[in-house]
Amino acid sequence: MNLLDYLPGVPDFPRPGILFRDISPLLAHPAAFKEAILQLEALAREFDYSHILGIESRGFIFGSALAHQTHKGFALARKPNKLPLASHRESYGLEYGSDSLEIQQSTLPQGVRVLIVDDVLATGGTIIAASQLLQKAGFEVAGALTLLEITGLNGGATLNQKGIANRTVLVA
Amino acid sequence: MNLLDYLPGVPDFPRPGILFRDISPLLAHPAAFKEAILQLEALAREFDYSHILGIESRGFIFGSALAHQTHKGFALARKPNKLPLASHRESYGLEYGSDSLEIQQSTLPQGVRVLIVDDVLATGGTIIAASQLLQKAGFEVAGALTLLEITGLNGGATLNQKGIANRTVLVA
Repeated sequence: MNLLDYLPGVPDFPRPGILFRDISPLLAHPAAFKEAILQLEALAREFDYSHILGIESRGFIFGSALAHQTHKGFALARKPNKLPLASHRESYGLEYGSDSLEIQQSTLPQGVRVLIVDDVLATGGTIIAASQLLQKAGFEVAGALTLLEITGLNGGATLNQKGIANRTVLVA
Repeated sequence: MNLLDYLPGVPDFPRPGILFRDISPLLAHPAAFKEAILQLEALAREFDYSHILGIESRGFIFGSALAHQTHKGFALARKPNKLPLASHRESYGLEYGSDSLEIQQSTLPQGVRVLIVDDVLATGGTIIAASQLLQKAGFEVAGALTLLEITGLNGGATLNQKGIANRTVLVA
């Protein structure tokens, strides 16, 4: 099974010039979705962590199923004003536009090691912001795990330069 | 294990007068999160369905892990302009304010039976909108499943009146 077959590119979404990878066909197909979670689990074994941080919203989909599969705790990095008791906010640039994320300091024990999970690694800006949030809030960043890295945007290399260990299931 | 212990109320979030149930402590605790998914799975057996629809964003968390656990397909009801190839949009009132959801018609086979999953059932407005979206797009609504129904808002009774079978793990 080639998981890329279930991640078709949609041209000019959400902005002209962007080729958006649609995860819906993968999610709709139980065997493909399961295979994606099992491949994420295999890569997650390379990290030392007790909790997974899912990035809103598509990171919630893969982070939640992976946390359930691996019996790890799950935490949320949410868009502004969505997370009760949010303690820290970080802004970041996207492949298109900019946005912010918030996390809670009070829910996880201080010093736990957290693995950041998202669906796609593009420029790395979102994951760098999540990493900075975790550090500000007193947690250790175990690394970052994605389903798909977009080639040509150097996200993996950028994360390496920032000292964020990272692995991805697919590259396209 | 009483799952309600892991869903503390946060007063006046996101608006004054709203008691928001924070799911973060439940997610952070692997045994509580697993128990929540297993209890959702037990109730899901009462429905005849092939796909789960998760409502953005917290419905993604429970819907994704439940789809993975039960080997069902997973589909997304997203906020406007987030979903590529969105075919239908529906607006709805919330316990506070209003919003819209979109779904894709093209990804699932026509006529499949879909179980709607969200974290909280309040007035039922969100789930009714999701149900209308599914029907407009040519799918069958198997019913709705939530982790928690908020008492005093009559969401379950409202869904029953609309012919939407519904079950919830917790009531508070």
